[in-house]
Amino acid sequence: GILERLDAGEIVIGDGGFVFALEKRGYVKAGPWTPEATVEHPEAVRQLHREFLRAGSNVLQTFTFYASEDKLENRGNYVAEKISCQKVNEAACDIAREVANEGDALVAGGVSQTPSYLSCKDKTEVKAVFRKQLDVFMKKNVDFLIAEYFEHVEEAVWAVEVLKESGKPVAATMCIGPEGDMHGVSPGQCAVQLVKAGASIVGVNCHFDPETVLETVKLMKEGLQAAKLKAHLMSQPLAFHTPDCGKQGFIDLPEFPFALEPRIVTRWDVQKYARKAYDLGIRYIGGCCGFEPYHIRAIAEELAPERGFLPEASEKHGSWGDNLSMHTKPWVRARARKEYWENLKPASGRPYCPSMSKPDGWGVTKGTRELMQQKEATTEQQLRELFQKQKI
Amino acid sequence: GILERLDAGEIVIGDGGFVFALEKRGYVKAGPWTPEATVEHPEAVRQLHREFLRAGSNVLQTFTFYASEDKLENRGNYVAEKISCQKVNEAACDIAREVANEGDALVAGGVSQTPSYLSCKDKTEVKAVFRKQLDVFMKKNVDFLIAEYFEHVEEAVWAVEVLKESGKPVAATMCIGPEGDMHGVSPGQCAVQLVKAGASIVGVNCHFDPETVLETVKLMKEGLQAAKLKAHLMSQPLAFHTPDCGKQGFIDLPEFPFALEPRIVTRWDVQKYARKAYDLGIRYIGGCCGFEPYHIRAIAEELAPERGFLPEASEKHGSWGDNLSMHTKPWVRARARKEYWENLKPASGRPYCPSMSKPDGWGVTKGTRELMQQKEATTEQQLRELFQKQKI
Amino acid sequence: GILERLDAGEIVIGDGGFVFALEKRGYVKAGPWTPEATVEHPEAVRQLHREFLRAGSNVLQTFTFYASEDKLENRGNYVAEKISCQKVNEAACDIAREVANEGDALVAGGVSQTPSYLSCKDKTEVKAVFRKQLDVFMKKNVDFLIAEYFEHVEEAVWAVEVLKESGKPVAATMCIGPEGDMHGVSPGQCAVQLVKAGASIVGVNCHFDPETVLETVKLMKEGLQAAKLKAHLMSQPLAFHTPDCGKQGFIDLPEFPFALEPRIVTRWDVQKYARKAYDLGIRYIGGCCGFEPYHIRAIAEELAPERGFLPEASEKHGSWGDNLSMHTKPWVRARARKEYWENLKPASGRPYCPSMSKPDGWGVTKGTRELMQQKEATTEQQLRELFQKQKI
Amino acid sequence: GILERLDAGEIVIGDGGFVFALEKRGYVKAGPWTPEATVEHPEAVRQLHREFLRAGSNVLQTFTFYASEDKLENRGNYVAEKISCQKVNEAACDIAREVANEGDALVAGGVSQTPSYLSCKDKTEVKAVFRKQLDVFMKKNVDFLIAEYFEHVEEAVWAVEVLKESGKPVAATMCIGPEGDMHGVSPGQCAVQLVKAGASIVGVNCHFDPETVLETVKLMKEGLQAAKLKAHLMSQPLAFHTPDCGKQGFIDLPEFPFALEPRIVTRWDVQKYARKAYDLGIRYIGGCCGFEPYHIRAIAEELAPERGFLPEASEKHGSWGDNLSMHTKPWVRARARKEYWENLKPASGRPYCPSMSKPDGWGVTKGTRELMQQKEATTEQQLRELFQKQKI
Repeated sequence: GILERLDAGEIVIGDGGFVFALEKRGYVKAGPWTPEATVEHPEAVRQLHREFLRAGSNVLQTFTFYASEDKLENRGNYVAEKISCQKVNEAACDIAREVANEGDALVAGGVSQTPSYLSCKDKTEVKAVFRKQLDVFMKKNVDFLIAEYFEHVEEAVWAVEVLKESGKPVAATMCIGPEGDMHGVSPGQCAVQLVKAGASIVGVNCHFDPETVLETVKLMKEGLQAAKLKAHLMSQPLAFHTPDCGKQGFIDLPEFPFALEPRIVTRWDVQKYARKAYDLGIRYIGGCCGFEPYHIRAIAEELAPERGFLPEASEKHGSWGDNLSMHTKPWVRARARKEYWENLKPASGRPYCPSMSKPDGWGVTKGTRELMQQKEATTEQQLRELFQKQKI
Repeated sequence: GILERLDAGEIVIGDGGFVFALEKRGYVKAGPWTPEATVEHPEAVRQLHREFLRAGSNVLQTFTFYASEDKLENRGNYVAEKISCQKVNEAACDIAREVANEGDALVAGGVSQTPSYLSCKDKTEVKAVFRKQLDVFMKKNVDFLIAEYFEHVEEAVWAVEVLKESGKPVAATMCIGPEGDMHGVSPGQCAVQLVKAGASIVGVNCHFDPETVLETVKLMKEGLQAAKLKAHLMSQPLAFHTPDCGKQGFIDLPEFPFALEPRIVTRWDVQKYARKAYDLGIRYIGGCCGFEPYHIRAIAEELAPERGFLPEASEKHGSWGDNLSMHTKPWVRARARKEYWENLKPASGRPYCPSMSKPDGWGVTKGTRELMQQKEATTEQQLRELFQKQKI
Repeated sequence: GILERLDAGEIVIGDGGFVFALEKRGYVKAGPWTPEATVEHPEAVRQLHREFLRAGSNVLQTFTFYASEDKLENRGNYVAEKISCQKVNEAACDIAREVANEGDALVAGGVSQTPSYLSCKDKTEVKAVFRKQLDVFMKKNVDFLIAEYFEHVEEAVWAVEVLKESGKPVAATMCIGPEGDMHGVSPGQCAVQLVKAGASIVGVNCHFDPETVLETVKLMKEGLQAAKLKAHLMSQPLAFHTPDCGKQGFIDLPEFPFALEPRIVTRWDVQKYARKAYDLGIRYIGGCCGFEPYHIRAIAEELAPERGFLPEASEKHGSWGDNLSMHTKPWVRARARKEYWENLKPASGRPYCPSMSKPDGWGVTKGTRELMQQKEATTEQQLRELFQKQKI
Repeated sequence: GILERLDAGEIVIGDGGFVFALEKRGYVKAGPWTPEATVEHPEAVRQLHREFLRAGSNVLQTFTFYASEDKLENRGNYVAEKISCQKVNEAACDIAREVANEGDALVAGGVSQTPSYLSCKDKTEVKAVFRKQLDVFMKKNVDFLIAEYFEHVEEAVWAVEVLKESGKPVAATMCIGPEGDMHGVSPGQCAVQLVKAGASIVGVNCHFDPETVLETVKLMKEGLQAAKLKAHLMSQPLAFHTPDCGKQGFIDLPEFPFALEPRIVTRWDVQKYARKAYDLGIRYIGGCCGFEPYHIRAIAEELAPERGFLPEASEKHGSWGDNLSMHTKPWVRARARKEYWENLKPASGRPYCPSMSKPDGWGVTKGTRELMQQKEATTEQQLRELFQKQKI
């Protein structure tokens, strides 16, 4: 089980980002980002699971992101009615289990934030949405559960409470930065609330680049220490450089979601991330949107000394480029070493483009408070509503 | 057949880059770049073919890049002897045909430049290498043949001559820029020689970004016109921005091959490329290294008005981001339009990195002649040898 | 007098940076940055004063930066002994007064931080150093006094106390950012201490770009409001973009002081700064290192509507480029408008260079605390000493 | 005399750019760029001459750029009628001579391209314009003459022919790039025509960065060698990085003339330029727009080993930053060495800006020919007229 591994001090490597990878492969629609591909194109989902497994993932998450009934209905215009929420979730479990059995991986059933919460449905209603997915996870007997991609700790706590009903271990990650959740709860407080609700593993996923995610997990760690609570730590960041993000992360960047290419992290960036995460005490280390199989392999390769083995996919990859040592060009051979790749500052090939962007919307950290004052909004929620009314 | 389609004025969409895509998925080793995955992991190769087919490719190239016997032997240390050249090529044909039959695509058998030529083997020996692959293509009855990725027109001509023995249509593309091949033969002259040798389709693949490739194909077109020769034109560029390349293309860039991420083109860059290629009279339009399925889909979407239909994968993609029009954030909804994506200058998120690099080695265009004078080399080949002796 | 003007609500425009401008003109040595040019080359100093006056400066600061006796002696190897501290300060006063009389400007005598303080001399000794310069200022009857460029509020308070002995109005600016002084005193607290010591005008000069300086002055303003103290606000920032600075400002940037060119602000950047400063309630608005006469003119032009007049130098400058409206090239004529220059994102012409740098030394904000912990330093001062011992 | 020095193999250092430097100081209006400051503010012109002399200039050019009668009249709306062309030119000569006498410099009288030529006046009329300025130069007995800033070799030849009437040595520089003059005459051919017309020194000034100017002078050198002609070579480039220029140079860049700051070259860039110019055989090495006194000093410092002495202004400047060796911060001391500054890639501090721009207008090299075809213009001149008619 997941807790046995973590309790024993093992490193657990997560998987990468499904919606972005499958969008590029042609099976997921950007915008809705829903996972009906589990029913429509199981072979594509299966292949991606296999690649992550081969790259070193110890956990295969069911491809059930945004697969709550309210979300799927909300996007119903293109999800044929015949593909029910239940079918999507069941197929996701079956595929994940099938591939997990090809190796030594655990299957984790995942839930994420719901339209019900955002449209102010009450606790009972929101919990019912999570419970519907949980029923499938129990029937399919996943190994453990993950509540991920929550912007509000309140909803995340409700999710954890539901998932705990199962008796299985629960992990919980929020898509927040160092400034905390959308109601202003700090990362430390978020972690405390999640652990008190029953999560054994807490951390951050999505919305920010590795550096920012680690900074946020560090704040969670400090919050737990201050509260004398114990939990395992987990990080699953974006595979995009986002130093210019505001509070709500990469969604507010002008490049989201169709021009993020120049921000994609290299395998060497990921090795640095994996090392830094490890040094910070994080033991569940994975990725989110943008993480392709070779990024996951980079985690496994960086931590191979600690783990004692390389992933299967490393049969097709030399450490730090050493497979270039036989190249016919001497200057390419000269790249077959760690110092080279570690220190390279890769060019964008885009001299007419800037290196940073101003985030759109009210997500810009610095100005938010001022704007709230100007607009006489006492909460960010109010400010958001004001903006939406004005159709800005 | 391919010529029937092109002669009828149809647009033929090629596929994308296998070695780079499968390297990221964990099945190809950078450095050797050989395709033994056709035998080792046919499901991974099959899936990638399917994604390109779904994205709109009309041609599936057999994954036989660098699958000549001399190349595979040369890299023999990791290609187990039991995987013979013949097996690799046969499996490649079988997989391509299987997927092609799932749609309306043609299968093209491909050969590329050989170590035999570079080590100065004679014409008979080099031709024998190509013939060995051709035997498999004939046995498996591919629809037509492609000689691609040649730096020297002399070798490309030999390849075309061998492939023409089959009686099947032959396409030929070189990996050169506007300065011509490695012996200084201009693109126009290259095209003339290839057509005279029997190629019905000529053009450029790999090594340079779309803009440079189109500039080079244009020179080929002008060369053919001057020589009063007719042929169809073809382009399969990199999916990387490489304005800073020297004569030998992206291999000399410091980022090759493990830090090219910030150079990856967006889908919108590809739409511009497709339109420009079409306007230039090119009718066989595809991609090479870096082209993922969504890049191929972008070609098909840009040219949908001319072709009259969208590819299957467009069921998961709105034109110019229109699937963002229902986003909950007004500033994200504002991105659901052509003008937005067309004009966006995407940031790299890397303020500590430059936007261009100086190429390594003697590939730097400007200084090459001077260096040859200094080193008393009368050909580039000699200069290369001098460098190699000195282990620079 | 200065206070009459400010109390009446007038905008007072300061002058620009002498040491940087005269270094480029050949009269000041980078490193020591001392002002012996007042004696050696009075015509050069006089000309620069004239240019600032013509550009709109209402205050001419005596060129007495780093002209304390301990500093001049400290740099004695190249300041010939015959040029005494007194001579340098007297000449500075004479030149400033001469040029001030050519217009309607005030002369301000200036003192700045001393080596005596940094080498831990006591309050009496440090005050004696300031008093020596003050004696000259009184003899030459300057109009008011400025204590500027202090990293430690303690020393700045001592300076203000000495200057107040004169009975003349005193302004005090520190070269700090939002994090406060080198002992960790916040900008708000610094302002409170300076006003309590007798300063009528407080603010920030040097070390940071306009945006950062304004952010810091805003914190000072809030500190004064909280303490129910009143003072006029003043800003004299760098004319360099420094978003990548650490706590100690531009000195830690790798480009300091000989490769700052790409960071130089445009006149349009200065107009934005002037407007923002005005909106923030700052009424003494000038510049520091990097500010050339045309930058000062930009302040005067931006605030011409409020002031009711343009500076003399505007006879050679059209508002927002309108002097381009008669250019022979139509595309240059198209630049003769405010929207053009306001929105232009100027290119560096340096595609091989990054857009930001990592500061050297312990000035890096984010890591400082961690480093102090690692090195067991309980203060930054200790950390600095540790670094110096190791000759890092 | 200038020729004695050059014939003896001496290096002659030119001066820097007057119109840009004095624009920043408040005495020249961008747009017209005319030099009436010689009459209005002689002290400002005198001071700039002095700074260049002190920085190492061996030649002081009279500040007579655009001081032809037709140009001054053309801009008459702001040049008071009382300031005649003759007065401007006479004052320029007097000031230059006064300062030259303070050291060991030569005075060169300069003429530049005229509105008369551009408005298609005939040879006699254009020559009369030059002769008017020459009369002043003869009366004031300048040491030699320079015809500079010509875009058309035809007009430059006419200027040289007029200047040669004086019997004094004549230098001639054109503001062209490697593509040649505006009628398509190659740099080599331009040089040949100028030497045949009587120029003893030929080269390039303005419009392009040092690298491009040197490339162009090299083509001139090769042209002269091919024609078996002898002349001294001269270069006076911009102090701006302009790798993105089209055929007509920096005027077409969107940043011209008010946002060029991020492009300003460092002193180290200038040292590289000086060395490269020297190695190319150029012996008259100076600068044009953007060159400040410290840039000229950098030429003199780089070539001090060859010349055997440093300029006066080097008393305030350490070689390669060695004056930082006594800084209190160890990491600043670490910058006191050649390798540091030579290899530094200076950041722009502008992460929201690109590194290159697309030039405006028809000056874009690559597209010009296509555009001419589209617009049915048979010469560039025609195309320009078409653009102007359309008021684009």
